[in-house]
Parts: sequence; C-alpha cells; structure tokens
Amino acid sequence: MMETDSALDKNGWPERYFAVIFTAQRSLSGDDIYDLTADRMVWLAQRQPGFLGVESVGGDDGIGITVSYWVDRQAIANWRQHAEHLAAQALGRQEFYDWYRIRVAEVVSERSFIADTIVKNSELDRDI
Amino acid sequence: MMETDSALDKNGWPERYFAVIFTAQRSLSGDDIYDLTADRMVWLAQRQPGFLGVESVGGDDGIGITVSYWVDRQAIANWRQHAEHLAAQALGRQEFYDWYRIRVAEVVSERSFIADTIVKNSELDRDI
Repeated sequence: MMETDSALDKNGWPERYFAVIFTAQRSLSGDDIYDLTADRMVWLAQRQPGFLGVESVGGDDGIGITVSYWVDRQAIANWRQHAEHLAAQALGRQEFYDWYRIRVAEVVSERSFIADTIVKNSELDRDI
Repeated sequence: MMETDSALDKNGWPERYFAVIFTAQRSLSGDDIYDLTADRMVWLAQRQPGFLGVESVGGDDGIGITVSYWVDRQAIANWRQHAEHLAAQALGRQEFYDWYRIRVAEVVSERSFIADTIVKNSELDRDI
C-alpha cells in the first residue's frame, strides 16, 4: 500500500502552498502492478523539487483519495510531466481506474487538533 | 459509513469553488456513535446553503480523508458554526479523533478521466 506522511509534521512548510486532490475509483484489474506503481510514484513524488507531503486512503470499495502538497503550481506541473509519472498515468487510465478526478487547490486556511492526555481541546487555528 | 456523492456529477457547480480537506486519525472509542454522527453530519452538510459535494474514504488503519466542496468561504464558515455541527466537533475532539487537520483550499484547476468501452483515453482538462 501507499505510504502516507504524517499530516501533522509540517516543519519547513511555507505559508502559501497548494494541494492536489486526487479522487479515484479503482477498476478490478492489475492489483499487483497497481501496488508497485503506486508505491513507486509516492517514492518518486517525495523526491521532486517542491514536494511537501502526501496523505492517501483507500477504501474497501475501491474508492481512494490521495492529497499531495506542493510549494507552487510549477512544482505540480513539473511532476505531472515527469517521464516515469507520465507512463504511470497512461497505465492508470488503461488498467487501474474506472474514473478519477484531479483538483489543484490553493490552501487558504488550516487548523488542527491533537488529542492529549492533559489538554484535550487544543485547537490551532491559522487563516492566511 | 458516510455517504459519498459522485465526484463526477458536477451539474450546476460554479467555476470558482472551495474544498475543505479533512484528514483525521480515529481513536479506538465510540464506533457506533461515530457512525451515527458522521452520517448525520453528511446529511446536514448536504442541506446547507452553498454545499456542492463530498467525498469520503476511511481506511482500515483508522485514517480518513473527507473532502467537501462549497461555493465560497462564507458557506464554509457558516457550516463550521452550525449548532449541531459544533456539538459534533466537540464530540469528535473528546471521543473520535487522536488528531485531525482541516485545510480550506480554493480550487484553481481540475481535470478528470472516465474509462469507457469505446474511448479509453478521454481526459477533460480545465484550468481557471
């Protein structure tokens, strides 16, 4: 399965950044190749300039959501055009997915909560 | 489990809209109440002014990603302050989640792919 960076480890993230929201329905074919390809793409993405993080969840029904974070739209465009990624995208359309949708979005505010034995209600809030 | 609107049925969506990316780690407590509460919140959100759609996936490891779509930040702010939603948020912090992170992001481009028996490679592209 895909690796997922912690959503909470945000050391060194810039104030302004972008999310790529990838929502997909897996088809029934190519399970082994899919796992290999997905793992490889996460590994590669993590090594691209401008990559910040990735969160990925796949459900039993084959629906998956992967959100990756990037410093700017150029970094996203570069990754989209990466040769090995282009090959994986073609394989995805031929084999892996019934449908997918990709949205690029600029993060404009965020907040988070971490449960704690002492302080249960700490909520950080940031609006940019 | 939560309902998920089709990511592809975008009739009537505006050119400009916003995503709320909710990433969370479930704690081990409160399964029944969680399911009831989550279903109720999706049902309620779908009835709020400015709601466009929702996609939600929960993995076996308790990590979940829910992305909801809204016409503007005011609609998101209103939903955040909805009385019953506020109660559910408090319950979430007390019972359901080890951590969560919420990001509001403005969608700036999107594209999608739908597999077809005839045309396998149709890819729609939109940049705004």
